[in-house]
Amino acid sequence: MRTEVSAFAPASVSNVACGFDIMGFALGNAGDIVTARRAERTGVRIVRVEGGRCPIPADPDKNTAGPPVREVMKRYRYAGGIEIDIKKGLPIGSGIGSSAASAVAAAVAADALLGSKLSKLELLECAVEGEKIASGSLHVDNLAPCLWGGFVLVRGYHPIDIVPIVSPLTLWCAVIVPEVEIRTSESRKLLPKHLSLVDVVAQTGNAAGLIAGLMAGDAGLIARSLHDRIAEPARQKTIPGYTRMKEAALEAGALGCNISGSGPAVFALSESEDVARRSSGAMGLALENEGVPFSLFVSSIKNSGARIVSES
Amino acid sequence: MRTEVSAFAPASVSNVACGFDIMGFALGNAGDIVTARRAERTGVRIVRVEGGRCPIPADPDKNTAGPPVREVMKRYRYAGGIEIDIKKGLPIGSGIGSSAASAVAAAVAADALLGSKLSKLELLECAVEGEKIASGSLHVDNLAPCLWGGFVLVRGYHPIDIVPIVSPLTLWCAVIVPEVEIRTSESRKLLPKHLSLVDVVAQTGNAAGLIAGLMAGDAGLIARSLHDRIAEPARQKTIPGYTRMKEAALEAGALGCNISGSGPAVFALSESEDVARRSSGAMGLALENEGVPFSLFVSSIKNSGARIVSES
Repeated sequence: MRTEVSAFAPASVSNVACGFDIMGFALGNAGDIVTARRAERTGVRIVRVEGGRCPIPADPDKNTAGPPVREVMKRYRYAGGIEIDIKKGLPIGSGIGSSAASAVAAAVAADALLGSKLSKLELLECAVEGEKIASGSLHVDNLAPCLWGGFVLVRGYHPIDIVPIVSPLTLWCAVIVPEVEIRTSESRKLLPKHLSLVDVVAQTGNAAGLIAGLMAGDAGLIARSLHDRIAEPARQKTIPGYTRMKEAALEAGALGCNISGSGPAVFALSESEDVARRSSGAMGLALENEGVPFSLFVSSIKNSGARIVSES
Repeated sequence: MRTEVSAFAPASVSNVACGFDIMGFALGNAGDIVTARRAERTGVRIVRVEGGRCPIPADPDKNTAGPPVREVMKRYRYAGGIEIDIKKGLPIGSGIGSSAASAVAAAVAADALLGSKLSKLELLECAVEGEKIASGSLHVDNLAPCLWGGFVLVRGYHPIDIVPIVSPLTLWCAVIVPEVEIRTSESRKLLPKHLSLVDVVAQTGNAAGLIAGLMAGDAGLIARSLHDRIAEPARQKTIPGYTRMKEAALEAGALGCNISGSGPAVFALSESEDVARRSSGAMGLALENEGVPFSLFVSSIKNSGARIVSES
């Protein structure tokens, strides 16, 4: 019987321009670590929270890591106690799936602690309980890539239908995170309630084109598909220097550039690490001119999702 | 120098449930034949029109075959004359791409007559000139599969971006054409002008899912994706016995069933010829009970598009 398990869950980019609420991909090298251990006291208790740019609630009902652990315990009919430590590697409210990473790492760690019996889909259902706290609505386009790794399509929500998308290409992603906070729940209020039929046709064409481009390994088609008619028009004004960063990334050779999740993070997709590093630098330069502090990530997208990093 | 060329162009199913205005596939064995021959008199003249259920205009400005021939002549800077004969194998206003088949066959025949120099995309641009007459708006989701064959995605319209979708599966299609006429231009007026964000997310998820299912050869995913939030809710009431036909096709084992184009034709997709024939029979039985006359087609979707059938 395991007494302590630590799980890592990566950052992720959701929406991916044309895939509002239905697409996302995992970033390999940045993420959160949650350690779960058996405890005397029944229920879930958050013992330690490290890292993260802003204060993170230690109340297990308000922290995105709490409800997933409680849901895992329920599925095991485990009436004992679990203590968790959270090591945030990702800034909260940044648009790169920080809340999803904590929720997924918590679910994966608790499951491993209690017997590793849950399927990926069951783990997703547990993690959703945490994500609800952060966004105020059910969406899994960060959770699913965080759990599965790589590029993931959420075909539908009733029931949740996850489709990992396999590509012969190894794409690279540059992400810039301006240090301004945007709450997902607030950012959703900016979205249009309706879309014109012309915009719907454009959006579905691009969503279908991105999937076809990824699966066929057609970088040109991917580039032509990376446009958004839903979130970008509404949200770009909330991100300092957005248009300049986008122009800079595209000039540096990126296939496309858009808002990561609900922002303020911005991602640029590329065919090579070299172009990803150049677009990262170009976006950084553009944001420096705006006088906004930021952090940068570069990662390949061919990667695994959440995983156990230590157990005893 | 060729003096006479005949081209065949197949029927096609557009929209394909989740792919409103962006997806279509060709049916192999039914279609129109257009014969083009050099003539003394300059300009385009329609000499003979055979078949088709309704009267077809012989005025080259009102027949969908006329403008494509004129456009091909323009691209060759050909100032002579071309006479055409049209042999309609498809009923007009039925929703299986009758006007597209005439337009494509006319473009292909005229191009072959003048030197076979145009690319598929150029032929599509010529055929569009005919389709505009029929639908009153620019859409190419019948024209493209009719020209390319198989399953085709129209990623975008500005510029037109055609993506042939290759699948390891050989899907089969049953089509039932109730003998009631629906004009594409009238049927478009029934469509919603706006879609709620919830419906947009469902539609893009299904469009992306259908492409992923086709390319990965995942029939279950195809089946889960074949739903429509745009046209079906608005148009199903215009088709007699629609709900019963759909239920019957699904009970017979079809992966999905929906309106073909703007109807009244209804298509059902299957994994085998056997199931396609059973769903065809089941839809026929359901429509017989409504007392509406109809015709039936069964075809595989792995097929070629428009082609030359004779030349001299």
